[in-house]
Amino acid sequence: MSATVIRYDASMSRWEPDARGRIALAAMELYSERGFDQTTVAEIAERAGLTERTFFRHFADKREVLFAGQESFRDLFVPAVAQAPADATPLQAVAAGLYAAAEDFEPRLPWSRQRQGVIAANPALQERELIKLAGLGDAIAAALRARGVSEPAASLTAQSGLAVFHVAFASWVAADNARLFRDLIGDSLATLKTVTAGE
Amino acid sequence: MSATVIRYDASMSRWEPDARGRIALAAMELYSERGFDQTTVAEIAERAGLTERTFFRHFADKREVLFAGQESFRDLFVPAVAQAPADATPLQAVAAGLYAAAEDFEPRLPWSRQRQGVIAANPALQERELIKLAGLGDAIAAALRARGVSEPAASLTAQSGLAVFHVAFASWVAADNARLFRDLIGDSLATLKTVTAGE
Repeated sequence: MSATVIRYDASMSRWEPDARGRIALAAMELYSERGFDQTTVAEIAERAGLTERTFFRHFADKREVLFAGQESFRDLFVPAVAQAPADATPLQAVAAGLYAAAEDFEPRLPWSRQRQGVIAANPALQERELIKLAGLGDAIAAALRARGVSEPAASLTAQSGLAVFHVAFASWVAADNARLFRDLIGDSLATLKTVTAGE
Repeated sequence: MSATVIRYDASMSRWEPDARGRIALAAMELYSERGFDQTTVAEIAERAGLTERTFFRHFADKREVLFAGQESFRDLFVPAVAQAPADATPLQAVAAGLYAAAEDFEPRLPWSRQRQGVIAANPALQERELIKLAGLGDAIAAALRARGVSEPAASLTAQSGLAVFHVAFASWVAADNARLFRDLIGDSLATLKTVTAGE
């Protein structure tokens, strides 16, 4: 039966529409239903109507299904910081990255909400998330230094910007939220300014 | 021979002066000399002139030697936030925690510098450090909420405060630094205010 499935895949692979998206949705359904640890790649492939071989053509492992999006997050965020107007302050440059990310995330609220639930239920996935975000902070700081921002201002702005993202993201994926991600980013930036203002 | 050593320890343990400190110093020497992964508990105990049994009476494993200090960091930081004057702003309350931590760290610069080198050389230890710091951020945010600070201001202030710590710490342990940790914290707080000020 495995041989049959592989043959089926081999013949279909050229025109299989959106295999990557189907794998991602099937994986998220299973992670939500039974938990990340209890789900196998074979089960994900089966639910997606694809083979394991197809799974591994798109993702290195089942964890990557959850974290592949962070690469595009970074590829979106960092260029937006780099391309902010020359007279933008460091925080305005980071805000440009935050708003670019918010636009990209917006249509994927159901996915992000489900992903958050899966990660919150699994300490190892939470650790992975922290490590990936720390790497993003370093990349943002590097983009700021390339704009002429010195240290420690570059690192501080990058890390504060990630805190803004983190807080806005939590509000955005909350079960009862009906507001746009970009508006929550705006609020979170304003809050950061408020808490750091004054003596 | 192992039996002899254990007997020796049993007879010495009541008056062995500062076994915990001797273990910590011996461990750090070995981690710096040969790397964390290449060091065993047996070697640490031998260098400290103690038994493995004594080691395990003080530390759960060799990694804990590096991270036990983070518990006291938290136990120092969080009460300082809680006990800041009632009219302190959220960031002033966090600053009280940062300065309390700086005073405590100051005499241990050589230890902190060596620890930083060991951790920088080992990705698994870096991950551990990130996870512990994220936990501290949550504890600081909780202390701010207990002061009446609402969310998301509490989380944003806690995370920005950790960014301030992170940046000041890196300057403090730098090989050529001769400045006090508390002054670097002050500079880092001022930089945070600068980068978040204005439009």
